Amino acid sequence: MTVEELVGAARAGSVRAAGRLLSLAEGDRRAEVTAALPQAAIRVVGVTGPPGAGKSTTVSALIGAYLERGLRVAVLAVDPSSPYSGGALLGDRIRMAAYAANPDVLIRSLATRGHLGGLAAAVPAAVRVLAALSYDLVLLETVGVGQSEIEVAAVADPAIVVLAPGAGDAVQAAKAGLLEVADLLVVNKADRDGAERTARELRAETGRRVLLLAASAGRGVPALVEAVEAHRRSDTPARRTARVRTQILAMAQTALRAHPDLDRLAAEVAAGREDPGAAADALLGRQR
Amino acid sequence: MTVEELVGAARAGSVRAAGRLLSLAEGDRRAEVTAALPQAAIRVVGVTGPPGAGKSTTVSALIGAYLERGLRVAVLAVDPSSPYSGGALLGDRIRMAAYAANPDVLIRSLATRGHLGGLAAAVPAAVRVLAALSYDLVLLETVGVGQSEIEVAAVADPAIVVLAPGAGDAVQAAKAGLLEVADLLVVNKADRDGAERTARELRAETGRRVLLLAASAGRGVPALVEAVEAHRRSDTPARRTARVRTQILAMAQTALRAHPDLDRLAAEVAAGREDPGAAADALLGRQR
Repeated sequence: MTVEELVGAARAGSVRAAGRLLSLAEGDRRAEVTAALPQAAIRVVGVTGPPGAGKSTTVSALIGAYLERGLRVAVLAVDPSSPYSGGALLGDRIRMAAYAANPDVLIRSLATRGHLGGLAAAVPAAVRVLAALSYDLVLLETVGVGQSEIEVAAVADPAIVVLAPGAGDAVQAAKAGLLEVADLLVVNKADRDGAERTARELRAETGRRVLLLAASAGRGVPALVEAVEAHRRSDTPARRTARVRTQILAMAQTALRAHPDLDRLAAEVAAGREDPGAAADALLGRQR
Repeated sequence: MTVEELVGAARAGSVRAAGRLLSLAEGDRRAEVTAALPQAAIRVVGVTGPPGAGKSTTVSALIGAYLERGLRVAVLAVDPSSPYSGGALLGDRIRMAAYAANPDVLIRSLATRGHLGGLAAAVPAAVRVLAALSYDLVLLETVGVGQSEIEVAAVADPAIVVLAPGAGDAVQAAKAGLLEVADLLVVNKADRDGAERTARELRAETGRRVLLLAASAGRGVPALVEAVEAHRRSDTPARRTARVRTQILAMAQTALRAHPDLDRLAAEVAAGREDPGAAADALLGRQR
């Protein structure tokens, strides 16, 4: 089938055709696919956070809430560590399985390892396909903490960061630079000890809105949906620029961490033969 | 008095002469002072962490412990926000006041604003003066969380990071890149709820040794001293290189945050006219 035929079949309800289109958009026929698709409006809500914080449970709760509002919902679950998923359309997440047969829900695992241009290029192409297939909302779930989530945050509005109570998840998110790009912070597992205190401390530390959620019990979901909608109404160019600023710095830092001269410079400084400031300048290609 | 005369007077016990020498070493006569001083061995233990975590209380407890071991102890308290302190020799920290009259203890506030080369240059010069004056150990306390503490960590062995229980301090320290350069993590105020849990989470998250302390009550101090001594015995060139690596990256990141093109690039990306990866490359002065 041509791309046009696939679009027609997918719009007529073929799950198989939709999966084939997404595979093409993720792979080496991306330019051909996106060129054949009409531009259409779609919203992207990001859900990210450390492993075990309850991202998938939160996503499942949001699927239910937005279906109730009459929206067609797609989930893009990004797992950088998983191999290319081929045409597999359905996620294997147990809690999402309830929605697998629903024609208004599409769940897609997006592997990024070895992809052309990585997540930064693959996600917008997949989102474009989903828009053309008349989905109203994409829930973009990223697994793990790292560069990918910084990239995701820049396309999502809002970017929701889900954390478990306590210091562990908060530290992971802070180290990844994630707290700075989060629009909404969610402390999940709010029935656990210390959840309110963690929320209070994160609010004081980040100046961001922090919500309490017990996603598996459904508690706090209406407030989360309301916060998502309120954020969308209030997003501004200044806020977007601030998010992008952090994103650019995170990408630059990732590049510096992989700089071929870093280990040699560190050894020189450790041996007392070089000054750390001069080494930093050398890393940035600057003369003193 | 010449520098040689000041050294003689300070070694004979003149607090005033010691203060004058330190002022000269912090200021524009640094090269002259350090050239006149004999090289002498001295240990530097760093104590850092967010405001309110109990750094000064921890430092006071360490002063007491090392005096008991027969060492002469100097404290360099670095406060980047305070104005130049002139010849003032004694800190105004209430808990340290007990040691103010002890001839084996010297407490010095080191302001870094406007200093030549900042903390990275001022601290080694002050340490050199203290070594020449026959102090055995410098406790280097930095106030606030930021670049200065990363710089401090590189000269200290070990660098101790003091945090209060909960997520707030841990997040501040992680954002500052401080957890990566910490040799020992201390959860102070161990009598508070959740201290043991915070210690457990930090241990899992950082892979570092984490100690519980109630410094104001003196609990946990012997274990902290033992950990300091054990770390000193086990420090290796590989560890020092890893610390320096983080230090160089932190200094490079600080330089990038102040890059004159960053705001313009962020606005371009936010407006969709530039790609974030290309903007990061531009920040690093690289061609794509």
